[in-house]
Amino acid sequence: MSGSDIAIITSVTNPRVKRLVALRNRRLRDREQVCLVEGYNELAHAVSTGVAPIEVYLCPDLIDDDPLGLAARLGELAPVFHLSRPAFEKAAYREGADGWLAVIPTVETGLDQIALDSNPLVVVCGSVEKPGNLGAILRTADAAGAVAVVSVDPVTDWGNPNVIRASKGAVFSVRVASASTADFLAWAHSNGLSTVATTPAATDYVTDLDLSGPTAILVGSEKHGLSAELLEKADRTAKLPMYGHVDSLNVAVSAGITIYEAVRQRRAVEPTA
Amino acid sequence: MSGSDIAIITSVTNPRVKRLVALRNRRLRDREQVCLVEGYNELAHAVSTGVAPIEVYLCPDLIDDDPLGLAARLGELAPVFHLSRPAFEKAAYREGADGWLAVIPTVETGLDQIALDSNPLVVVCGSVEKPGNLGAILRTADAAGAVAVVSVDPVTDWGNPNVIRASKGAVFSVRVASASTADFLAWAHSNGLSTVATTPAATDYVTDLDLSGPTAILVGSEKHGLSAELLEKADRTAKLPMYGHVDSLNVAVSAGITIYEAVRQRRAVEPTA
Repeated sequence: MSGSDIAIITSVTNPRVKRLVALRNRRLRDREQVCLVEGYNELAHAVSTGVAPIEVYLCPDLIDDDPLGLAARLGELAPVFHLSRPAFEKAAYREGADGWLAVIPTVETGLDQIALDSNPLVVVCGSVEKPGNLGAILRTADAAGAVAVVSVDPVTDWGNPNVIRASKGAVFSVRVASASTADFLAWAHSNGLSTVATTPAATDYVTDLDLSGPTAILVGSEKHGLSAELLEKADRTAKLPMYGHVDSLNVAVSAGITIYEAVRQRRAVEPTA
Repeated sequence: MSGSDIAIITSVTNPRVKRLVALRNRRLRDREQVCLVEGYNELAHAVSTGVAPIEVYLCPDLIDDDPLGLAARLGELAPVFHLSRPAFEKAAYREGADGWLAVIPTVETGLDQIALDSNPLVVVCGSVEKPGNLGAILRTADAAGAVAVVSVDPVTDWGNPNVIRASKGAVFSVRVASASTADFLAWAHSNGLSTVATTPAATDYVTDLDLSGPTAILVGSEKHGLSAELLEKADRTAKLPMYGHVDSLNVAVSAGITIYEAVRQRRAVEPTA
């Protein structure tokens, strides 16, 4: 690609490079209400869902192909800065950076910004910690047609670069929100969502419950599961059959199984869906 | 804990410490037919499933509790070496090492070592690469009562320390094997297993197929899915409904959904199982 008319930032101590590094910090992201997207596919996906970047950073030395004409599209949307390879690799959080990076507005919204459909499926992460798990849950929620993923009492924010990466772009196509336990429960109640807490302590199996109506599926943290308050105040609790030696599943896996049990029931009720 | 009668290895260049570091390399693990287990819970789980350690390495400075009396049990099973904190942290592959480490015989067996039950469920990973995904699939297979997990044309070995860790001990309770595509297909055929390849290119949904009989569920690599040969030679193919923007799920999640659909069908046929 050509960058002949744009000055190239070559210094790893350039203020823009330092700011990109600083934006790996959640507090700064929160304060500035922005997050970072890195990688050709992720950025293309973000733009295709209507995300308007604030600033774009490209590394011509790392880019050898642009089949979607993304550089031109980004140039229409935001100021584009070119970085030398050392400067880009300093700014990039990812191993094996591919030369594409942008600062975008925060992906996170409030509960009041979620537009529920007529039979909403919502996924709720209670203090899930690992970015890889949050990203995988987002991918599953997107694939299952869930309307939103809500982080209750969040430990890791939706703007975490590794969440965005692991979500394979789903963070842009599913609404993501954060809320306190009290606010989430009030919102679920006022919107007629039946809250289903997944926990090994449940009596009913996931497949025993009717998940075909407006439902919020709650999964808890890797170490401690759901909080006592969410377990107590949820409308129903459900578990998975466990025949082996391990006492729990990976949280993204158990979320996936439960979400797709809801999909199965919805398809059985309305096979054309 | 007391280690007064055992000499403490304090040098980070001690040959035993260097050998533990070297065992992070797959080739050496393969040649010596051993692997490493690290962490109190993992080691306790290994011993509880009958694993007999070859050598045990403990760091008294890092251990502050042993509710299961594991140190005494390990002392009956194998020679125990005590390491200083710097030496242990050099030997340990894990951040935040807890002071427990052992060399154990390889966990991997051949297909001929798998004892199939009357209605076997087998999970097959085709070139799955990430240790975290292999570990999560093992956890799910264990929980679902699967008899074995077979790695076909493996990229990552079952003895990889991060696989063992992510499996939360399931690597010791589920049989794990590796095989070529040809050997796996011959074994599945001769044992009457119906092979089901999961792929977005399938026509049938997972929930449309009968998974209640002897079944092998095949999932492919993170980047490329299943190989052309496995897709072509599998008895059936199946997909999941995808309503969103992403074109695939995390492999451990899609494996989990498919495995638990088989569990659901089996419970429906035989509710007491």
